[in-house]
Amino acid sequence: MIKRTGKRTLLFQNGVYMRAAAAVAGKKEGEGPLKSWFDKIFEDEYMREDSFEKAESMLQKEALQLALKKGHLSHDHLQYCFAGDLLNQCIGSSFGVRDLGVPFLGLYGACSTMALSLGIASVFVEGGAAETAAAVTSSHFCSSERQFRFPLEYGSQRTPTAQWTVTAAGAVIVSSHKAPVKVASYTAGEIVDFGVKDANNMGAAMAPAAASTLLHYFEDTGQSPSDFDCIFTGDLGAVGTSLLYELLAREGVDLSKNHRDCGLMIFERKRQDVHAGGSGCGCIGSVLSGYIFKNLEAGKLRRVLCCGTGALLSTVSTGQGESIPSVAHCVELTREENI
Amino acid sequence: MIKRTGKRTLLFQNGVYMRAAAAVAGKKEGEGPLKSWFDKIFEDEYMREDSFEKAESMLQKEALQLALKKGHLSHDHLQYCFAGDLLNQCIGSSFGVRDLGVPFLGLYGACSTMALSLGIASVFVEGGAAETAAAVTSSHFCSSERQFRFPLEYGSQRTPTAQWTVTAAGAVIVSSHKAPVKVASYTAGEIVDFGVKDANNMGAAMAPAAASTLLHYFEDTGQSPSDFDCIFTGDLGAVGTSLLYELLAREGVDLSKNHRDCGLMIFERKRQDVHAGGSGCGCIGSVLSGYIFKNLEAGKLRRVLCCGTGALLSTVSTGQGESIPSVAHCVELTREENI
Repeated sequence: MIKRTGKRTLLFQNGVYMRAAAAVAGKKEGEGPLKSWFDKIFEDEYMREDSFEKAESMLQKEALQLALKKGHLSHDHLQYCFAGDLLNQCIGSSFGVRDLGVPFLGLYGACSTMALSLGIASVFVEGGAAETAAAVTSSHFCSSERQFRFPLEYGSQRTPTAQWTVTAAGAVIVSSHKAPVKVASYTAGEIVDFGVKDANNMGAAMAPAAASTLLHYFEDTGQSPSDFDCIFTGDLGAVGTSLLYELLAREGVDLSKNHRDCGLMIFERKRQDVHAGGSGCGCIGSVLSGYIFKNLEAGKLRRVLCCGTGALLSTVSTGQGESIPSVAHCVELTREENI
Repeated sequence: MIKRTGKRTLLFQNGVYMRAAAAVAGKKEGEGPLKSWFDKIFEDEYMREDSFEKAESMLQKEALQLALKKGHLSHDHLQYCFAGDLLNQCIGSSFGVRDLGVPFLGLYGACSTMALSLGIASVFVEGGAAETAAAVTSSHFCSSERQFRFPLEYGSQRTPTAQWTVTAAGAVIVSSHKAPVKVASYTAGEIVDFGVKDANNMGAAMAPAAASTLLHYFEDTGQSPSDFDCIFTGDLGAVGTSLLYELLAREGVDLSKNHRDCGLMIFERKRQDVHAGGSGCGCIGSVLSGYIFKNLEAGKLRRVLCCGTGALLSTVSTGQGESIPSVAHCVELTREENI
């Protein structure tokens, strides 16, 4: 039986291992600080497809194929594919993995989807429902802008709190077979809504959700930030990160010493003109599957938390004057000794 | 450990029980053949909210609250809420369960979402990750028409193969505590795409996915349709149902004797002018949580399959000339003896 600790945290003691992972990214991401950690960089934002949405599906397909290849696996080894993205009806995923021939479990956690899918995939593996499963997610700047904001051709001004949707995808293969990097725990988050209504300030909307999930994790496990090499959040950006520090400080938790936000890691903010930082499912998706996984594999990181953060809004809910409900899911990744 | 049988079917032998379920529906559904099986019928399509989308969220909220009440439970008893719907970014769910204070795992399986969420919730319970969890889904005719088709005010003509999105929600509480109705197995489906491009003929697009998942179930378990009181499909409608029979007949499986499609059960097609039948997440969602669950509880049904069917299209994918990838997820429900 899967071990639960405290109120919300699942500990994977049988062993859920990250067999392989792959990250693919677009041109702008490939010019950023993490360029050497991506497995493939596309110079063309269409990825040789004829629409941005098809390009996004291609990102997922490429990431998954690369991850399988790196794990010396084929599609046949997968029992399940957990995937999701930001596009309406999650078409990035359904078209991306359409030809896979593997049971497909579609998820929607907005930009928290990588942590959500990795968490659920791990429950399946730990519980014995699967030996091997994939967790995949993506986002694309151009498909997101078109869907959530304005046609690119308008050349709209962006507010200082706005974030830049990352063009990238990440795929992780989890398995019950021993490997150096382990998924040690999963803490699912509740929906938190502090009433933020500005769709151009999603970091502020998501920070309370990240705080909630991290506090639950610390309470459930008796751990504190100093027990980790690093605590990664998904895409809070500059605004959300400082709010997260403030919210946690009120509870006596100092996160500032060993925290990094994937949205702040993936771009050099000023040079790349991304305002408050990167965002999108592909942000933590590609950073986790690239930088974080590779550093764990190499033993340069030994214990981390990855807290994916999602803003559960739509253009309709915003248009109807609603605030932005948010959610954060957290997975703990560790480097096993002697493997 | 969760027992897997064959290639894709998970058997829940520790025991996953349906502690309670509730179905709420709109006026038209409340005038249909299943009217006496709904727990609550709303006469007003706005459900006293000020938009169709908020009304859909209210449907989910009501269904979940009723299910909890019927199970003599409060929110505090839930470890997880699995929910999804058809609206862009699944706002029916995120706003519907926003105030719950329970870890939220968002899913997207289009109209298969009830079977998908019930399947994943069951894996969590069977594996020990949860004692009690909720699976919730909804659809709303007016929010769907606005999003996927035309503003209602246009009074557009519907094609004969078109289906009518059901205004309804269903909520199921699953638990490890013994109860009369059991979730016995879950078979997840792969994405199947036979190249159907007509978004007004989703039954045809989904039938091959239903056939695929049902065939996998029969192969995995050695069972055949005659082993069941009834095999329910989600929302294939008239067109999809006859295609499903044809596809299965080619494989030597005769489904016609004890099959019912929730999309054909929920409306009286001619009198209620719904063309090929009902559809939407709320279709199988409310029929499973109402008619099917209550008949199992009363012992009038003893063993059924519920095969939710989802068409994974969006207006963008259709506009770009894409075909309609589909998926079907199947849960087996049984009435336990002596409980």
